[in-house]
Parts: sequence; C-alpha cells; structure tokens
Amino acid sequence: MAEQKATNVHWHEGDITRDHRQKLLGHKGATLWFTGLSGSGKSTVAVELEGRLNEMGILAYRLDGDNVRLGINKNLGFSAEDRTENIRRIGEVAKLFADCGVIALSSFISPYAADRDGVRALHEASGMDFIEVFVDCPLSEAEDRDPKGLYKKARAGEIKNFTGIDDPYEAPAKPEVHLRSDQMSVAEEVDVILSALRERGILPA
Amino acid sequence: MAEQKATNVHWHEGDITRDHRQKLLGHKGATLWFTGLSGSGKSTVAVELEGRLNEMGILAYRLDGDNVRLGINKNLGFSAEDRTENIRRIGEVAKLFADCGVIALSSFISPYAADRDGVRALHEASGMDFIEVFVDCPLSEAEDRDPKGLYKKARAGEIKNFTGIDDPYEAPAKPEVHLRSDQMSVAEEVDVILSALRERGILPA
Repeated sequence: MAEQKATNVHWHEGDITRDHRQKLLGHKGATLWFTGLSGSGKSTVAVELEGRLNEMGILAYRLDGDNVRLGINKNLGFSAEDRTENIRRIGEVAKLFADCGVIALSSFISPYAADRDGVRALHEASGMDFIEVFVDCPLSEAEDRDPKGLYKKARAGEIKNFTGIDDPYEAPAKPEVHLRSDQMSVAEEVDVILSALRERGILPA
Repeated sequence: MAEQKATNVHWHEGDITRDHRQKLLGHKGATLWFTGLSGSGKSTVAVELEGRLNEMGILAYRLDGDNVRLGINKNLGFSAEDRTENIRRIGEVAKLFADCGVIALSSFISPYAADRDGVRALHEASGMDFIEVFVDCPLSEAEDRDPKGLYKKARAGEIKNFTGIDDPYEAPAKPEVHLRSDQMSVAEEVDVILSALRERGILPA
C-alpha cells in the first residue's frame, strides 16, 4: 500500500470511478456467473478458481447460498416469483462487486434463461463484463454424485420443484465458457476460465 | 500483481477467507455507516474520504442512492416497511463488501436507530467492523443548504414523511465518529475518520 505523502492534500478531481479502482487493483472487475444442475460442480470450480486468483494477487469474492440466501435474500422463499427475485438481487449485488473492481463469482443453479439474461443485460447496460459459465454435467452423473442427498429427496417427493427432476433446467444457448464437468478435472476447468478472462482483458495477459 | 509462477499448482488448503483477502489488499474491510439529515453533508464527506483512501491505495466503495435505490432496492418504495427493508438490504450488501476486504461507505439518511442497530448487530455477529459516522448538522443549517430543494418541497407539503420535517431523525446515541458538519471542514472530517480507522487497526497505523 502506498503511504499517503501529504495529509493536507485532498481529492479535488471529482468522484472516484471504476477506472481508479481498476488501476489500484491491477485488474478489471467482472461477474462470473456459474450455472448448472445441483451437483454439477459449480461451487467446486468456483472455490478452486478463487484460490488460484488469490494466489495471483487478484481480488475475487464468492456469492453463494451461505452468504446470500441467509443474508440479503433471507426473506425470500422458493415460489417462482421469489426465485426470480433471488436471482435479480444476486445479479445486482454481483454488479456492485464488479463495479468495485472485484471478480464476483456467483454460484447458483439459476435454471431459467430469462433470469440469467436479465442479469446479463444489467451488466452490459453499465459496460460491465458478464461471463456466463455453464457447468455442464449430465443429470444422471449429477444424480449419482448427489453430494447433498437432494436428488434422493426429490425422487422420494420430499422436495418439490427440484431442478432436473420436476422443474426444468434451461441450458445457456451461448455461454462465454462451457465446461463439461463430467469430462474435465477441476484444474482444467479453472485453466479454461483463466484463459477466457485473459482473452477478454479482464486479467492481464 | 504477483505473477502466477506455476500453472500446474493448485489451491489445496481450503476456502479463501477474509484473512487472505485482507493480506492481499493490505488493509481490513469495514463498513462506515454515514447517517444524518438530508443536506447534512454525508455524501460530501464520503466522496472526499473515498478519494483520500484511493490515493492511499485503499479499496473503498460507496453505496448510495444512485447505485442502490436504482438497483437492488428498485422494487422498494417509501412505506415504513419498505424503508426498513431498504436499510436491511443495504446493511447486508455493506457486510458482504466488508467481508470482501473493502471499506464500504454507506451514505443514507437512515433515520431510525433500530434499523441502524440491526445493521450493526449483523456486522458484529460476524466479527466485522461497523463504524457509525454521525454527520451532525442542525436542521436549520441543513434546511438553509437544501442542495436538492427537498426541504422546500417538504415544507410545501409536496413530499410527505420527510425526515426532520414530518418524520423523526433519531440521532445515534454512541456513534463511533461524531462530525459537526456545520463547524468542520470536509478535510477535517476526513482526517477524523482516518484517525478512527487507524486506531481500530482497520488501516495500518
């Protein structure tokens, strides 16, 4: 951190902008929007990516069920209306982080294309990078993994409207990054994402 | 930014934590919660502070009406219930930024002590610094300034439930920072805040 050289010198050139923060951090902000079935490996790749970015000195922050569903979205349930509002709010928060200069890593099933496209439009209207990362895994494989035992409960009828079972997953038509998580290692997935970030000038080449 | 030295080395030590991000940035995250009457000078001091922090290499981000009321809170009005939800959501977002390692600068009238105390409790429960900054200005002075012409409209009855006119402002009982904005220059206010951040170990001494 640079020392402040003169305490009597003040900021006079107007508001601090996204560019100032980008210069301070050495990289651009962006939203990486991981989408895919439960058990597809969204969080696994997001956690690994976060670690790699931190090692590279790049500020990233994960938005996930733990810090969002229990926080800003704790007053939302699972009705169709609330699910849409859930994604809208996450999108708005991710946009603020991207504006701040952070690589925001959003990791939610987000099964509906219209909701994801809304978040994309929000970013693009403000000139911010939105990178849709499709974590693509066949349902049979995700259901075999069933890390949280949720598919089992859905098949038993204990959970209703479960994505892939009795609620649709609308796969992205043109994701910026398409990962076949049943065929790639997590490290390979991270490499593909990092390449995409460099290609877009979000990270230095 | 540190170059990644070996592309075949991956993160194996578990999730990245607040401490990792703090080390990367060289300072702690915290929420600075500016509260005071309309026209008291909350945004003025927040903007100046943001500039000073950026000059010092410290990552700060302002949450204000422009990026919050039009974004995550765009589906909220001005009923008592919506005002409380407005502050709750801003508090949750500020907490995420503080957790990320950013100095979050929240600049809203936030007239009700219970709402502010709720945000404080949210931060303290997660071990995060919440600095309430009371931007204290007599109503007569704020009304004389009336930078947005809102007091005039409130006096004319064109705006209802306006803080200080026909809705109460509950002054903080024990703010971490108390600024008399009618008696201090903006530069002096910023100096007081920076001292408070250093004293608390949020910024290096």
